[in-house]
Amino acid sequence: MQYPHDLQQLIQALRRLPGVGTKTAERYAFHLLSSPQQHLDELSHLVADIRNKVRHCPVCGCILFGEACSFCGNARRDTSLMCLVASAKDVFALEQTGEYKGLYHVLGALLSPLDGIGPSALTLPQLQQRLTTTPVKEVVMALDSTLEGDTTALFLKKELAPYSVAISRLAFGIPMGSALDYVDGGTLALAFSGRRSY
Amino acid sequence: MQYPHDLQQLIQALRRLPGVGTKTAERYAFHLLSSPQQHLDELSHLVADIRNKVRHCPVCGCILFGEACSFCGNARRDTSLMCLVASAKDVFALEQTGEYKGLYHVLGALLSPLDGIGPSALTLPQLQQRLTTTPVKEVVMALDSTLEGDTTALFLKKELAPYSVAISRLAFGIPMGSALDYVDGGTLALAFSGRRSY
Repeated sequence: MQYPHDLQQLIQALRRLPGVGTKTAERYAFHLLSSPQQHLDELSHLVADIRNKVRHCPVCGCILFGEACSFCGNARRDTSLMCLVASAKDVFALEQTGEYKGLYHVLGALLSPLDGIGPSALTLPQLQQRLTTTPVKEVVMALDSTLEGDTTALFLKKELAPYSVAISRLAFGIPMGSALDYVDGGTLALAFSGRRSY
Repeated sequence: MQYPHDLQQLIQALRRLPGVGTKTAERYAFHLLSSPQQHLDELSHLVADIRNKVRHCPVCGCILFGEACSFCGNARRDTSLMCLVASAKDVFALEQTGEYKGLYHVLGALLSPLDGIGPSALTLPQLQQRLTTTPVKEVVMALDSTLEGDTTALFLKKELAPYSVAISRLAFGIPMGSALDYVDGGTLALAFSGRRSY
């Protein structure tokens, strides 16, 4: 016994969400089916309009609040530092720390040959253009500590070598508040090799 | 730094999906933000129309394929058996077994006092009506093996006592293909008390 065609289509559309498999999509679809029509209309409008309502800065790729970019159009940001992030979402996490006052550049993706995501998915030409026109002294790569993040970091290091900028990457180590015996071996090894004078 | 208003609204709407917290909703929202507009339009239309496109049988609550219900309008189903399920989704799981040929009755919910879901959320009046008008001999409760499922089963047992029907509940025990030492103590205890002559 198959689900009705429209329900199957909804399940397929929900499966496009990250990390959602068939079982989860079915659960979401049946939940939507029993939701009030008002909730469905709300979600429907928000989904359809989100790309028009939320715009990205054409220069750095960050989400725009109003007309001017809060980062590359802000004279109070430190233009000697540029932080590379995979997605505009990461900017919010970094801003929450209150530590960083430099510029951002959203790469748009991380390299993942297995998923067919190659260098053309990255905003590398725009980054190279910015490095020639802005007085950036250091590029900080704030990328995931995953195979994709490591691949992208290595690739960018090579591509940015011709530019006269220092290249750094966020430190790896023990997360704050965690007990040593709960930290996995890979992280411990990275924390060892990255140890600092105390 | 807050997300833009429209993005926050989308995150709130996505949080209504079952099991979705703020972090997951944010992940979904940013994924949608970088999805092609065509995918967004598809999802938007499917969400808005799902309640109109997929209809439920007014008698048993199962999903309708065409005009007549495949269960209560089907002369080849065994009208002496009626299976109680929480949601129309469960019917698909039970039909997949190919074992059951009786009728269904979708309760619409499971009792959950903590979530404010009381007896009025169940389609109990419709069930009582059906028990007086159809020749049902046995009611099989196919409910989750959870606190909510147990509460609902106990409640229904009491409410259906005045009707001349046998009341049963699906067996509890070791799932097929599972090793004994991986089964939790509660399940093992239920499997012991429900043991059958072999």
